[in-house]
Amino acid sequence: MPDDLRFTPDSLPSLLARRKPGYTLEAPFYTSPDILDADIETIFGKHWIYVGVEPDIAEPGDVMALQIGRFSAIVVRGDDMDIRAFHNVCRHRGARIVPEGKRSVGNLVCPYHMWTYSTEGPLLHADHMGADFDPSCHGLKPVHVRNVAGLIFLCFADEPPADIEDMAREMTPYLTPHAIPDTKIAFEMDIIERGNWKLVMENNRECYHCAGSHPELTASIFEFGFGFAPESLDEDGQKAAEEYNCLVNNNTAEWEARGLPSREIDHLDDRVTGFRTQRLPISGAGESETPDTRVACTKLLGELTERKLGALSFWTQPNSWHHFMSDHIVTFAVFPIDAETALLRTKWLVHKDAREGIDYDLDHLKSVWEATNQQDSDLVGITQQGVRTPAYQPGPYSPYTEMLVEKFSNWYISRMKAAQQGGAQ
Amino acid sequence: MPDDLRFTPDSLPSLLARRKPGYTLEAPFYTSPDILDADIETIFGKHWIYVGVEPDIAEPGDVMALQIGRFSAIVVRGDDMDIRAFHNVCRHRGARIVPEGKRSVGNLVCPYHMWTYSTEGPLLHADHMGADFDPSCHGLKPVHVRNVAGLIFLCFADEPPADIEDMAREMTPYLTPHAIPDTKIAFEMDIIERGNWKLVMENNRECYHCAGSHPELTASIFEFGFGFAPESLDEDGQKAAEEYNCLVNNNTAEWEARGLPSREIDHLDDRVTGFRTQRLPISGAGESETPDTRVACTKLLGELTERKLGALSFWTQPNSWHHFMSDHIVTFAVFPIDAETALLRTKWLVHKDAREGIDYDLDHLKSVWEATNQQDSDLVGITQQGVRTPAYQPGPYSPYTEMLVEKFSNWYISRMKAAQQGGAQ
Amino acid sequence: MPDDLRFTPDSLPSLLARRKPGYTLEAPFYTSPDILDADIETIFGKHWIYVGVEPDIAEPGDVMALQIGRFSAIVVRGDDMDIRAFHNVCRHRGARIVPEGKRSVGNLVCPYHMWTYSTEGPLLHADHMGADFDPSCHGLKPVHVRNVAGLIFLCFADEPPADIEDMAREMTPYLTPHAIPDTKIAFEMDIIERGNWKLVMENNRECYHCAGSHPELTASIFEFGFGFAPESLDEDGQKAAEEYNCLVNNNTAEWEARGLPSREIDHLDDRVTGFRTQRLPISGAGESETPDTRVACTKLLGELTERKLGALSFWTQPNSWHHFMSDHIVTFAVFPIDAETALLRTKWLVHKDAREGIDYDLDHLKSVWEATNQQDSDLVGITQQGVRTPAYQPGPYSPYTEMLVEKFSNWYISRMKAAQQGGAQ
Repeated sequence: MPDDLRFTPDSLPSLLARRKPGYTLEAPFYTSPDILDADIETIFGKHWIYVGVEPDIAEPGDVMALQIGRFSAIVVRGDDMDIRAFHNVCRHRGARIVPEGKRSVGNLVCPYHMWTYSTEGPLLHADHMGADFDPSCHGLKPVHVRNVAGLIFLCFADEPPADIEDMAREMTPYLTPHAIPDTKIAFEMDIIERGNWKLVMENNRECYHCAGSHPELTASIFEFGFGFAPESLDEDGQKAAEEYNCLVNNNTAEWEARGLPSREIDHLDDRVTGFRTQRLPISGAGESETPDTRVACTKLLGELTERKLGALSFWTQPNSWHHFMSDHIVTFAVFPIDAETALLRTKWLVHKDAREGIDYDLDHLKSVWEATNQQDSDLVGITQQGVRTPAYQPGPYSPYTEMLVEKFSNWYISRMKAAQQGGAQ
Repeated sequence: MPDDLRFTPDSLPSLLARRKPGYTLEAPFYTSPDILDADIETIFGKHWIYVGVEPDIAEPGDVMALQIGRFSAIVVRGDDMDIRAFHNVCRHRGARIVPEGKRSVGNLVCPYHMWTYSTEGPLLHADHMGADFDPSCHGLKPVHVRNVAGLIFLCFADEPPADIEDMAREMTPYLTPHAIPDTKIAFEMDIIERGNWKLVMENNRECYHCAGSHPELTASIFEFGFGFAPESLDEDGQKAAEEYNCLVNNNTAEWEARGLPSREIDHLDDRVTGFRTQRLPISGAGESETPDTRVACTKLLGELTERKLGALSFWTQPNSWHHFMSDHIVTFAVFPIDAETALLRTKWLVHKDAREGIDYDLDHLKSVWEATNQQDSDLVGITQQGVRTPAYQPGPYSPYTEMLVEKFSNWYISRMKAAQQGGAQ
Repeated sequence: MPDDLRFTPDSLPSLLARRKPGYTLEAPFYTSPDILDADIETIFGKHWIYVGVEPDIAEPGDVMALQIGRFSAIVVRGDDMDIRAFHNVCRHRGARIVPEGKRSVGNLVCPYHMWTYSTEGPLLHADHMGADFDPSCHGLKPVHVRNVAGLIFLCFADEPPADIEDMAREMTPYLTPHAIPDTKIAFEMDIIERGNWKLVMENNRECYHCAGSHPELTASIFEFGFGFAPESLDEDGQKAAEEYNCLVNNNTAEWEARGLPSREIDHLDDRVTGFRTQRLPISGAGESETPDTRVACTKLLGELTERKLGALSFWTQPNSWHHFMSDHIVTFAVFPIDAETALLRTKWLVHKDAREGIDYDLDHLKSVWEATNQQDSDLVGITQQGVRTPAYQPGPYSPYTEMLVEKFSNWYISRMKAAQQGGAQ
């Protein structure tokens, strides 16, 4: 037993080198402050990070400030309606310019000594700096932004991964019909999860745990939708699985005929900018992820007219997932706080003209994922408790229900190895 | 003065090597997170740790989960009435299976993906793992258990110290008359102490501080019971001390004639599984550690019929002490939380058939140690505050009143040295 | 951009060596726990630290205990009226003897085992230590004290910087007329600031931020009083600046004629015991730093009879500043808590015979600095938030309004370099 108990963490390179495929990561990946720092530098510092949606900053001068690990970023819509992003740090004494959250501004004015930057970044004004001072060298430091059909991604690297363009090209037809730019945020919720950010992501990447933990969510998803061991099925089960496959095939064909791309695309671990998408049917009434599986909002998104469009899932590495239905969108972003804590930010979007209390009831809209998020947060918490112990050792993923977790871990390990070898690309 | 101020901690081996006998430990032993990690690995990871009593898990399926430093353990009574222990970590994704505390179960089911273990450890069931998965390789990892007359000790080492058997053989005659298996837990209290676990232990190992801090406790203990400098006594004092010695001798002879072993046994620092015991008279009415020194519970323990049996003390290294009286037992366990915080868990036991409000009054039962624990916690807190400062340097133990503190420190240093030299034995 | 983002801190010597004059410090100086430890050892451990005023311990037996980084000190007035200081650590088991705050004692008695020290330091009594124990080797460890006209400075070094005598000689004529020993503390306030102690100090060393943040304070200070870029003034501004200079010159001459030294002395970065002083006019009614610029206390300090004496500022490295007016004194001390937190302790002093509600109204007395402190604390907090981010890089100080910040940073860097080279002197 002694070599089963782990006390002294190895170095990051040796931990990366010996990662066993098909198994969970070793404990330090979930507990070490040093590895969290490396995650911030490599994963969050050099990849495209999902941060929010166009309606977060709908009007000129709208600003959203957010903390991403040790990074602090400002996302702002300019008077030209373009979206830009900057490091949220004054070039004078280093003060954070904009508090976390959303507001509307004329210019970006540091509260300390009133250094004033335009929403496009340049320093417009600074008192008392003297004749030798060159304002043009003291503009806000830019952060790369890519808007994919209304989903906003940032990259802190000097040269961001170029394959965001591949993702944008492939995903835009899937996302456009749901018309994110024409939505509003009906509800927004932050949860502090008591676990490493990767445990929050791994939890999202499988529904093996759904049957035991998510009574609200499983009302709207098919039991077969997230994998099963074929040998576990009896004759009735096999028949039901076949029926489910038919349903998926028929629905996919029908949705695509309506101009709604629905087939699976999976680049979770074979691209720098990893992602996956697929549209799957909803059970029950088949309309939406609500307690009664019917639409939460009677005013549908964009130009959509059909309620039964299933749920389009979109997963991005390292930090997001999204569900697009005919009537509403739920979008999730994960941000590390420290080695053992992460923030999960969830937003529910409806058509911008939908009226609360008339077109939608807020509780009906948010109840499934509000409950599911809390249940997941509890599961992440007990997993963090367990991986911390000296007796924890990596365990096996199910080959039928945890393939996407494996792809998340693969992607993470390969990106970290690439950085060790001298570059994010 | 400069070399009196300490800023940079030395390495553990050099701190161990230069420990000065008769003096308190150097500051890093009380403040360094690295040394706390070494304590968890060596002291709590390779020695027998007291964790609770048989009544904690009286029935088949009763489970107690507890945190011991970074360890998380499950103690469970099987359907065969045997007591077993396991690491509280699922072999799948590493979730903590059972929340801290006590409950009753059929099997041990991980809440994450419902992996189901029997109370004897083997994995009974796991969905979707496929044909190549071997459940027999994924049972719960066992932890060694030794039940000494109703006191439960765990050891996380592969080969636990064998001399627990010596302690069990020697202590069983002392403990059996108090019939722990036939008790119930009348009250249980956790205190978070703001000090290193060793300061909590050192505080317990002397009563030099009792006169100044414990008015409730000193009502039931004799002033001479915990040592004194002979030269501090005047003629009256010398006479009183002689009388006390006579009382101890007479009582010891009388109790032993009743079949109650009472003489001192001390192996606090000459055994791997260090311990000490002695039965000493109680002052006043002489019955129990209560405000009026009379029994708190009129139904005596086991088959006992005599109330005036003094208090049998039992101390174990590294983390427990216990007081056994005719009517009740108070039992204390210390668990490290971090370098500067520890948990003190106290349980008050009475005969399992005693009725609250009739045979015993709960306030009367617990008031002495409830108050004393809080006073001790305050003293531990100010000591932690002081040892943290650069001006702290090890101070001398009293040769008359702090011998057992010295033995605790000796035991600790020698066990840590042994581990540095390559083994706990 | 990549080399603009900072993830891995360099060593202290290389950070010290490459500090760029005229710019803020690099991030680790504000965020690294290791550098905070070095600050405690070098800056707070080897220099004169301002801790309080004579009225804190006005009577024999009065004791003030305070935490200064990892240090814990006792300042006590003896029966001989002398002020002494000691490390607040018992020589026995290391307990903190006196809780933080102020009280009155006969002797200094450790609450743990009642070891009793006189207010002059020697161990008077310890029970049970035996014949071989030598009390004379176990007195409290002394800390150096220097009382400068009622302001109390401590030094933890064995050989404190000798140039405190230069400061005392030069400052005594400035301070004496305000008669600190004849004051009482009308109000005292502690604020926990969410920033490194050096950010608290830097914030104090400029009023560039005052116009934007301190409406209460700027009622009583002249706009020109804390610097301006000459080229920023239009013709009217130039005239106003000249008038302000005349006012300063005239006032200085008038005050000095009254026996109140007022001219600037500046040794902020050319002495080990760095300091600066200057008396400047108050605007409006010209009397005091109050909302209406009139005295807060009608009973003036010491023997003063003239209300319009401006404000004498006194700044000391590393941790204090003070404002002396005709009617009251405000005195500020900064103590590090951890790398990202500091304590600001502020005291308002009035004549010891002044009666609250009659001679002064407490709200009127404290309102300006109570508000200003909170505003400064907010600014320190956002600066800490910003310097923590990987995008922060040192920014330029204004050559007209941040010269004293530059001198603070210079002093700090030069003192740290001196310690690296083997001594504080």
